[in-house]
Amino acid sequence: MAASLLKVPAYIPQQQQNHLFFFPRGCSSRSSGTISHNKRLCMLPVVSMSASPLQLQLHLEKSASSTQNISIPIMVNGCSGKMGKAVIKAADAAGLHVVPISFGCDEESGQALQVCGREFLVHGPSDRESVLAFVFDKYPNLIVVDYTVPTAVNDNADLYCKVGVPFVMGTTGGDRDQLRKIVEDSKVYAVISPQMGKQVVAFLAAMEIMAEQFPGAFSGYSLEVMESHQASKVDASGTAKAVISCFSKLGVSFDMDQIQLIRDPKQQLEMVGVPEEHLSGHAFHMYHLSSPDETVSFEFQHNVCGRSIYAEGTIDAVIFLAKKVQSKDSKYIYNMIDVLREGNMR
Amino acid sequence: MAASLLKVPAYIPQQQQNHLFFFPRGCSSRSSGTISHNKRLCMLPVVSMSASPLQLQLHLEKSASSTQNISIPIMVNGCSGKMGKAVIKAADAAGLHVVPISFGCDEESGQALQVCGREFLVHGPSDRESVLAFVFDKYPNLIVVDYTVPTAVNDNADLYCKVGVPFVMGTTGGDRDQLRKIVEDSKVYAVISPQMGKQVVAFLAAMEIMAEQFPGAFSGYSLEVMESHQASKVDASGTAKAVISCFSKLGVSFDMDQIQLIRDPKQQLEMVGVPEEHLSGHAFHMYHLSSPDETVSFEFQHNVCGRSIYAEGTIDAVIFLAKKVQSKDSKYIYNMIDVLREGNMR
Repeated sequence: MAASLLKVPAYIPQQQQNHLFFFPRGCSSRSSGTISHNKRLCMLPVVSMSASPLQLQLHLEKSASSTQNISIPIMVNGCSGKMGKAVIKAADAAGLHVVPISFGCDEESGQALQVCGREFLVHGPSDRESVLAFVFDKYPNLIVVDYTVPTAVNDNADLYCKVGVPFVMGTTGGDRDQLRKIVEDSKVYAVISPQMGKQVVAFLAAMEIMAEQFPGAFSGYSLEVMESHQASKVDASGTAKAVISCFSKLGVSFDMDQIQLIRDPKQQLEMVGVPEEHLSGHAFHMYHLSSPDETVSFEFQHNVCGRSIYAEGTIDAVIFLAKKVQSKDSKYIYNMIDVLREGNMR
Repeated sequence: MAASLLKVPAYIPQQQQNHLFFFPRGCSSRSSGTISHNKRLCMLPVVSMSASPLQLQLHLEKSASSTQNISIPIMVNGCSGKMGKAVIKAADAAGLHVVPISFGCDEESGQALQVCGREFLVHGPSDRESVLAFVFDKYPNLIVVDYTVPTAVNDNADLYCKVGVPFVMGTTGGDRDQLRKIVEDSKVYAVISPQMGKQVVAFLAAMEIMAEQFPGAFSGYSLEVMESHQASKVDASGTAKAVISCFSKLGVSFDMDQIQLIRDPKQQLEMVGVPEEHLSGHAFHMYHLSSPDETVSFEFQHNVCGRSIYAEGTIDAVIFLAKKVQSKDSKYIYNMIDVLREGNMR
């Protein structure tokens, strides 16, 4: 990986030497699209169930017989979304068993969708409870992964809690207090996190710990913050704001209005160095601190292309939760900090 | 400070756009020289004391009458060294009272040196105990700052402990166990730290906390480390090694031999972007992490020109220690983590 510095700086590919961000080299051949949720997914009109219990049984048995996978069974809702697909791909690579049944929106109800090389039976909103109970009965160690839409978060959580199946909630939005409450009340195991990028969570946590332990350590320092996301993201990065709050405790004054948002694809390509195929789905952040006399600088960057990091973090959360379920832990609700504290599980 | 990104990236000055490191803009007009200790300073031949008690008294009174400084009195050993001078300058700016007496090496003994606009009486190794006792009697709140040489560390600490004067030991080397022991045994207040760059200590501590809390969080990630120092520094940066140890706990394998040491001034100027006047004294570090599929990268940089950061950190340590002395704290030995935890004191 390390090229000779005399030719090209080790981690700035030739065409990117003028770029502001040191983006990952392998971005150009991986992932695509955005991590925004498919808004067509999981709306809630009532339709009839599309497959009988016998059909479900046969479909599950057919899937099981074609693999000898005895590992953690997971159900991914919704399997046709971009995050759903990314999770299925990551789950396959990690050796998890992805149950070929999924909950989708009304339009997908009754369809058999080809996703990642297998056929998924998709159920719409009606009879989901009996379908989920059926699958949970077949796979007692089942864990559900939810990447649907904000408007479905609470109804979906209610469903998982009613049936009693552990779940990983990757979907953002909805009523988070209500989400937490239903899980607490039903004593169902869950990992709930709006940020599934485990390493980004680790970085943010390190900043928070530094700010809490060493208040005012960077008093007098000035801060510049730049972030680049796909053009459709109109608001400033929540992660950037969280990091800025840490710097505030560290003694650095900074107005959130000063965050430099890069949304112009031309700037992203030419100045920031985002690979073209990731213009529609990336999250680049840079924080630059300078001492009052400008003899010292610190810089932190975290640059994400596509959604692989979130899919991998989700798999980590699934494996973590499976352990907690198996050990009958007395704690039920977890977040990515808990997953991080557990250490590397694979 | 924030230039328009459409013209020049906010923190890469025009001539540095191809540089690897984002170095501080103001470096070119500040500081100079190296932070290496003046090896001629504080050797230990025996010579006679150069000024009588009366002369000392008159010298101190003359200095005191020309200021109305009632703040913390400090004695800087050795005042003619590069770090000594930097500390005196920072102390003046911070409103501390720098006592115009200093311990130096044999060659300087008996001299009156002009440093930072005032005259310092420098004493050689002989009769230092009575001189120090004299000054301490005159200034009961005195704190000594030691930036001498490794070979003088233990004898100097023995002296400070014998007289009972609190001190900040910025000099590296010597027998550190013995240093700690003499301080513990004599119950003298001291801040001992080989790294006085407070913010660098904060960054390193944050990395250590992240590694301890989230072991294996970056498993599978690859790491590149590059550091640049003045050509006279032949070994790899100790700070870089400490950060690499953290990454090891975070699951990243890395051999210390893989650290890329930049020592060629031409590379430092053209590739790294070190300002010319700081080629002889700088400490630039960059750590770059990439995910296994190269869709994610993290980068951390800490870049220091000159020695201002160490001088400012020393002043923070002095102010911190003065508080501990005044409050008669039950703890005597402190390091920069303790200073950091205290928060901003000015």
